[in-house]
Amino acid sequence: MKTSIATVCLSGTLDEKLRASAAAGFDGVEIFEPDFVSSPLPPRDVAALAVDLGITLDLYQPFRDFEGVSEEKLRHNLRRARAKFDLMNRLGIDTMLLCSNVGTAVSSDDALAVDQLRRLGDVAADNGVRVAYEALAWGRFVADYEHAARIVRSVDHPAVGHCLDSFHILSRGWDPVAIETIPADKIFFVQMADAPGLTMDLLSWSRHHRVFPGEGAFDLADFMGHLLRSGYDGPVSLEIFNDTFRRTDPFRTAIDAMRSLEWLQELASEALDRDGSEGAHMRVEPLPEMDPPVGFNFVEIRAEDGQRDRVRTTLYQLGFDDGGSHRTKPVELWAQGGARVVINNGDATAGAPAVAALGFDVADTHAAAERAARLLAPPVPREEGAGDEPLLGVRAPDSSEVFFGRIGAAGVPAWVAEFENAPVPAADSLVTRVDHVNLAQSWEYFDAAVLFCTSVLGLDPQPSLDVAAPTGLVRSQVMSAPGGAVRLVLNLAPAENVANPVQAQHVAFASTDAVAAAKRARQRGLSFLPIGDNYYDDLDSRFDLDPAFLEQLRELQLMYDRDERGEFLHFYTESLGSVFFEIVERRRGYAGYGATNAPVRLAAQHTRRAGLS
Amino acid sequence: MKTSIATVCLSGTLDEKLRASAAAGFDGVEIFEPDFVSSPLPPRDVAALAVDLGITLDLYQPFRDFEGVSEEKLRHNLRRARAKFDLMNRLGIDTMLLCSNVGTAVSSDDALAVDQLRRLGDVAADNGVRVAYEALAWGRFVADYEHAARIVRSVDHPAVGHCLDSFHILSRGWDPVAIETIPADKIFFVQMADAPGLTMDLLSWSRHHRVFPGEGAFDLADFMGHLLRSGYDGPVSLEIFNDTFRRTDPFRTAIDAMRSLEWLQELASEALDRDGSEGAHMRVEPLPEMDPPVGFNFVEIRAEDGQRDRVRTTLYQLGFDDGGSHRTKPVELWAQGGARVVINNGDATAGAPAVAALGFDVADTHAAAERAARLLAPPVPREEGAGDEPLLGVRAPDSSEVFFGRIGAAGVPAWVAEFENAPVPAADSLVTRVDHVNLAQSWEYFDAAVLFCTSVLGLDPQPSLDVAAPTGLVRSQVMSAPGGAVRLVLNLAPAENVANPVQAQHVAFASTDAVAAAKRARQRGLSFLPIGDNYYDDLDSRFDLDPAFLEQLRELQLMYDRDERGEFLHFYTESLGSVFFEIVERRRGYAGYGATNAPVRLAAQHTRRAGLS
Repeated sequence: MKTSIATVCLSGTLDEKLRASAAAGFDGVEIFEPDFVSSPLPPRDVAALAVDLGITLDLYQPFRDFEGVSEEKLRHNLRRARAKFDLMNRLGIDTMLLCSNVGTAVSSDDALAVDQLRRLGDVAADNGVRVAYEALAWGRFVADYEHAARIVRSVDHPAVGHCLDSFHILSRGWDPVAIETIPADKIFFVQMADAPGLTMDLLSWSRHHRVFPGEGAFDLADFMGHLLRSGYDGPVSLEIFNDTFRRTDPFRTAIDAMRSLEWLQELASEALDRDGSEGAHMRVEPLPEMDPPVGFNFVEIRAEDGQRDRVRTTLYQLGFDDGGSHRTKPVELWAQGGARVVINNGDATAGAPAVAALGFDVADTHAAAERAARLLAPPVPREEGAGDEPLLGVRAPDSSEVFFGRIGAAGVPAWVAEFENAPVPAADSLVTRVDHVNLAQSWEYFDAAVLFCTSVLGLDPQPSLDVAAPTGLVRSQVMSAPGGAVRLVLNLAPAENVANPVQAQHVAFASTDAVAAAKRARQRGLSFLPIGDNYYDDLDSRFDLDPAFLEQLRELQLMYDRDERGEFLHFYTESLGSVFFEIVERRRGYAGYGATNAPVRLAAQHTRRAGLS
Repeated sequence: MKTSIATVCLSGTLDEKLRASAAAGFDGVEIFEPDFVSSPLPPRDVAALAVDLGITLDLYQPFRDFEGVSEEKLRHNLRRARAKFDLMNRLGIDTMLLCSNVGTAVSSDDALAVDQLRRLGDVAADNGVRVAYEALAWGRFVADYEHAARIVRSVDHPAVGHCLDSFHILSRGWDPVAIETIPADKIFFVQMADAPGLTMDLLSWSRHHRVFPGEGAFDLADFMGHLLRSGYDGPVSLEIFNDTFRRTDPFRTAIDAMRSLEWLQELASEALDRDGSEGAHMRVEPLPEMDPPVGFNFVEIRAEDGQRDRVRTTLYQLGFDDGGSHRTKPVELWAQGGARVVINNGDATAGAPAVAALGFDVADTHAAAERAARLLAPPVPREEGAGDEPLLGVRAPDSSEVFFGRIGAAGVPAWVAEFENAPVPAADSLVTRVDHVNLAQSWEYFDAAVLFCTSVLGLDPQPSLDVAAPTGLVRSQVMSAPGGAVRLVLNLAPAENVANPVQAQHVAFASTDAVAAAKRARQRGLSFLPIGDNYYDDLDSRFDLDPAFLEQLRELQLMYDRDERGEFLHFYTESLGSVFFEIVERRRGYAGYGATNAPVRLAAQHTRRAGLS
């Protein structure tokens, strides 16, 4: 599959955009006209740069408001087109995107559009180029790709074909099945865009909120299936208008973009598998297959000297056993049931405690690592002592490390034996495993983090929600493996609150008995996050709780929630640097995270911080 | 008019929200339940704090999903309500907001809702409180305030009345005229919200994008008129869900909020004037009237020692005359036609050149200053020498200074005579006046800046637009006086590009002949912002320009635009610190700002900066 990307997806100058696209491995780019117009590079230099970088210039775009106009306007439009065709020849671009008329069309008569497009086709052919006509979702008279297909069929000119854009088709809810009826040689270009499921005007949705495939809600697998069945084998290109991508490092964004196309190729490959081999001309190299992880292998906390004792003490208070030090590496293990926390002692200047790495249990660690590499995740170099269990790691967009490991036959990873007191999981542990991990994400790479979880880790995004903190709304995006075997929560705190960040990184341990865990923790002197009486009074009014039970919750500073299936009991430790811990008990299949309690927790943390400062 | 504000409008803890509301001069607050539930303050402490701060607690809100439910659910809901009524008694709040049912209503039968609300009224009356029923715009069966009015009329219970919220009425396009038919003693509470004209789902629009009155697109003057004609004289309160206000300094946001209500009172007062005096019971104290400014009085540039010569040289190159130094103050004047630039030499550490103050020509400087003070604009202290023309100044939300001055009979402000070479405007000046000034705004106070311009300066917001810079989109909001006598452009650059800010501050001078001005500037050695050939080639394709004219534009690095009325020629200087200058020529009533050229200019500036760094 030939990959391409529109320069409008990336920040920077035209020069920077081309370099970033090439560095990420794209085969070609679409030149978005305003990027060229505002560039100091003359056409020949742009063409030469593309050759130097080993990329093709696949499309010049967009040309607007051409067809369905008065004869006088048409003459002006043909003059405009001639100038652009001439420019395309100097740039070495053979295809121009023509959007269906939004502003100047005066007639809904298809015959007029057909006639005018045919005349444009003649001019294009004279200049050795071709025109890819695209039905904009908000086109004045032509908004539906099937309508555009009827027009192109009537134009019947070798220099006039289609550009198909998944956004313009799926945003309007058109069925993409009719793509299969368009002759493959009339599909000149294909643009892929994903988008979150927003209810807003099409233009704003399109211009500000598009995301890379895998970061939104469109069914692009289905779209790709229809495209492949049409026989199309041209470029699959990304045209993503996104306010965030416009201002982030273009080299990083381009890698995220390339990852999305690799993932899209996997969808295409799956579509082919379901369908026979007719689309084999797409030359899709399938990614190594990987089942989603079945659990957390470990959580690694890094902290500087002098800050680690607080972590150790808190883990002890939560019931964890000291598994001792690694035989060769400066790390120590704390374990309880199937929950394992590794404290890294190797960096004396690591700062306050923070989650530095997550390990995931997968069936085939090498397939997972190879898949991650194909998806452009940078590997994490790791020294292994003789006989150490190999752990393969990659770096996530938030710079945390992700390792792939395996649970051995004994129910523990083989690497546990490398620690001096290798702990054996007790059957009666109050904590059984890691329930979920919340990681704070920067505004810059939030969408990239979603795609990383989807494509590299095989996790599925759940509906996101906003949680109110005293310093702003926190967007919370759960990514989960089937059955909740792994739950990763990506928290996007308000971008600008740099001076007063929301503490959003935490590790929640699943318990069979949160009440007993809280009692033990209190006995061991744990400093609980304090929850006020107003919360418990409100709880009572909402849930008609048994007075003795309510009193126990209040006494132990436990929080409570209920859904249609079951109940949720949980409590929090005080923050230790950038991280805190939570104990959760899910009764009878409760599936949530106590979202209504999150604002109370965030306010309590805010008050504690303010009190400390 | 009694003013109130919901705690959800502000960031911080409940304690901080109450203090900020009181500090801004609000009479009362609405307690947003989640703010109370997550507060460590017990009810008696909240009540005592309100007394200490001299504010009343006017409303407890919201109570949800009460009516139209099964009998079993109703019993639970009445228990919930009793708990809240008891809490309200402890807080000293006598009114609870009840939103129309969104989630649990099972019947659309009004009779059921009427019966259940009457039972709620009985419980409320027993507890000495009352319930203000509000039709949420997205209520399941009750979404229209007139529908709610029919229900409340049928309930016919002294403890059951209305809450009217301008958002829920205007967002759906309901006509607010029927407010006049609601008995005034049945309107228990009124919430005012403005909102930008967005096309999106109501819930997202309401929860994220509300703004203070005067910052959005709703016709709140009309709304207030109907409200006053109803005879309502209770609190007028702000309930603004806004992602930005949730994370900015609550003390500053509260002042912005209070300003919006002062301005709303002026609208109310105007409504009264048009309508006779029936609403006089609102005790509206009218703001001092002020006509919009008729021009810029001056622009003040501040720069540190060693950076001012670049400003002087550039002004000379643009044709300005050196008006010499002030007789007592460390400032110097540069003038051309009716354009006056004051360079402030008083701060040796002021940093790079930047616009520090703007002077506006107004008919009555004292009325303008008094009005600004009533609108909570902090005064700028200013020393005046004996015999100096007094200039009254206030500080804008972006911390720049705003002065009110007058143009004397001679066509120049009287203060010009205080400079050693007091310049006389030449009839043949190429520059005639300040055309517009662009000021960069932080994300935190952008909406506040719009309201400041509207309420304090009497400028009208024009449709805003997004301009693409290489580092992100810049939102550009023109605020203008009638006929373009004053044009202020508020530019909101991407919030997070702290490391690479978009240079958005500039002063544009109106010229009668941009070509001649450019030639003179070149002769005098001006360093123009370079514009590339690609721009001129594109210009040609778009506008069919006369080749000689195009060549002149290219030769002089002039930019060009055209609208339905006329033409626009303009050019830019290189940036001097945070500011640059522009010369603009508007031919035959061109009304825009060359928006299509802005991305080209921003890219050229980006390239220059990158080259320099």
